[in-house]
Amino acid sequence: MATLCRPAVSVPEHVITMEQTLDLARSVHPEHPQLDLALRLIENTGVEKRHLVRPIEETLTHPGFEQRNAVYEAEAKARVPRVVRQALADAELRPTDIDLIVYVSCTGFMMPSLTAWMINTMGFRTDTRQLPIAQLGCAAGGAAVNRAHDFCTAYPEANALIVACEFCSLCYQPSDLEVGNLLSNGLFGDGVAAAAVRGRGGTGIELRRNGSYIIPRTEEWIAYEVKATGFHFRLDRRVPGTMEPLAPVLKQLAKAHGWDAAALDFYIIHAGGPRILDDLSKYLGVASEAFRFSRATLTEYGNIASAVVLDALRRLFEENGTRDTARGLLAGFGPGITAEVALGNWSTGREAG
Amino acid sequence: MATLCRPAVSVPEHVITMEQTLDLARSVHPEHPQLDLALRLIENTGVEKRHLVRPIEETLTHPGFEQRNAVYEAEAKARVPRVVRQALADAELRPTDIDLIVYVSCTGFMMPSLTAWMINTMGFRTDTRQLPIAQLGCAAGGAAVNRAHDFCTAYPEANALIVACEFCSLCYQPSDLEVGNLLSNGLFGDGVAAAAVRGRGGTGIELRRNGSYIIPRTEEWIAYEVKATGFHFRLDRRVPGTMEPLAPVLKQLAKAHGWDAAALDFYIIHAGGPRILDDLSKYLGVASEAFRFSRATLTEYGNIASAVVLDALRRLFEENGTRDTARGLLAGFGPGITAEVALGNWSTGREAG
Repeated sequence: MATLCRPAVSVPEHVITMEQTLDLARSVHPEHPQLDLALRLIENTGVEKRHLVRPIEETLTHPGFEQRNAVYEAEAKARVPRVVRQALADAELRPTDIDLIVYVSCTGFMMPSLTAWMINTMGFRTDTRQLPIAQLGCAAGGAAVNRAHDFCTAYPEANALIVACEFCSLCYQPSDLEVGNLLSNGLFGDGVAAAAVRGRGGTGIELRRNGSYIIPRTEEWIAYEVKATGFHFRLDRRVPGTMEPLAPVLKQLAKAHGWDAAALDFYIIHAGGPRILDDLSKYLGVASEAFRFSRATLTEYGNIASAVVLDALRRLFEENGTRDTARGLLAGFGPGITAEVALGNWSTGREAG
Repeated sequence: MATLCRPAVSVPEHVITMEQTLDLARSVHPEHPQLDLALRLIENTGVEKRHLVRPIEETLTHPGFEQRNAVYEAEAKARVPRVVRQALADAELRPTDIDLIVYVSCTGFMMPSLTAWMINTMGFRTDTRQLPIAQLGCAAGGAAVNRAHDFCTAYPEANALIVACEFCSLCYQPSDLEVGNLLSNGLFGDGVAAAAVRGRGGTGIELRRNGSYIIPRTEEWIAYEVKATGFHFRLDRRVPGTMEPLAPVLKQLAKAHGWDAAALDFYIIHAGGPRILDDLSKYLGVASEAFRFSRATLTEYGNIASAVVLDALRRLFEENGTRDTARGLLAGFGPGITAEVALGNWSTGREAG
């Protein structure tokens, strides 16, 4: 039985507060016809601060896609190893115990991906499988958990390592002026997260079942435009309303497992924005308090893309987890619009798998 | 037992011959100090012709990364569906039978990836898992087979669809003048391939075991530089020599399965270039004739990246396959430098799995 172990998370040292974000929006876009709306939307996110890989002055410039991507690579190499080592230590695994590395990141592009560098420099075996995913955006956190789960189902003795490396600030595009862009500029943050999925043993979520779902005909609602200046984020105003069609999907997946999605013991939800959490709480019929881990991630770090679910899970661990066999749900949402959902039981490794 | 079924392959209608390629190299780079070397290297590829998504005159211009990527998306949407429908028909599957789509492509970038569009337009179920891989380059053909194999091992009733969509001509960079670039300009071609992996039944390669391997400290030998002008391919002169370290890896994987890599019944090898095939034949101790499928792909289509292994396998099918239980090896090679290797038995579905 595959167990998603304690995530390690690191956010960078450069901090921008909500107040600074609002001030910046006012000073950068004084004449924007929808400035007031943008300010209101940013305030409504509830994001109190975010962490950035580079100082805000540098973040606001655009030195070109090549330079941006070089910063991505340098920062990833500087920040990923410590998080990975912590996640491995917490799962009581050595690099050589890992059979698969799932590396998810949509905010920089490298070929080969960072997996090759990690194997070469961090002591992983040369026969470690590499699964880099760049195109699932925020849903990739859930997808990484689910593909690692599938892998450990196929090879019950195997272990997987998940790494989510998201430097959203490196996708800041000064020329994008739609309200959705201004909102995004105040919503997304940077962070690196890692967690092991152990085929045997471990404390965390014993993964029981996973599923994916795409909301029909919404593929343009969350998307990158690929330009000479890099990835340009496009966010449709209908995205915050997507929990209404997705809640039944989560209910159905739980029901297929004999569980009631409204009555689970813990919830690890991608905090895309405040309404995602509010609406999912409402449509699932779950108390808002049940989403406190995701809410805390959003408040303290902003939307750190695929790393959100791992950071929210870290916060559950910091509450000392929950009781053995407690039932829970983990869900990532992102472009497609795609939901990647996992069901599992809390396990301290003391009960039989 | 997962079975890799008959691949469908399509190459575009615009053709460039070796002679035209050599003429172009001469006319575009008349003063290049290493022109003679580049011409000799191109001649040595043995690539008689290649197929391109756009006419050669248009291919030689660079309209910018944004426009290139728009062409990628339009051409993928125009060309992928027919190949996918053929692969499904050959595997006797409907779109609704597919549980996972593995979409591999390193020559354009979309988020969401083409998987979302395929699900929305081609009749796949809304709960189809999406696994887009953009960062494994030519090795992604083998990786797609192996991850589909893993998935069907985890869920024995499931079916996966593999799609390899490679328009290498859209990564042509007129400003890249190293000999490795000039060679690449004469080596790579465009193609789309698809194949189903059936969890139960089907005719093709019953997948038995897979493995991955990275050659230590070669991560810069095959790489993209990411620039405002798009992906710039970097090919180190040491790449053609990599079969010497990789042949023992293939032998070891076969041995772990109780097989002798030198004495298998069929070989489906990524035809990165002629020396890859020559050297692997030499270091494995296998007759050159055994690599005839890969050689034919290289000669007729050039290196079509992740689609090569599927096209080579198609050619085995067109020889009417081989005898039931015949043993074979499939291997993709690409950036990392990564090898993705699969072992399997031919099966017409008449023998027990």
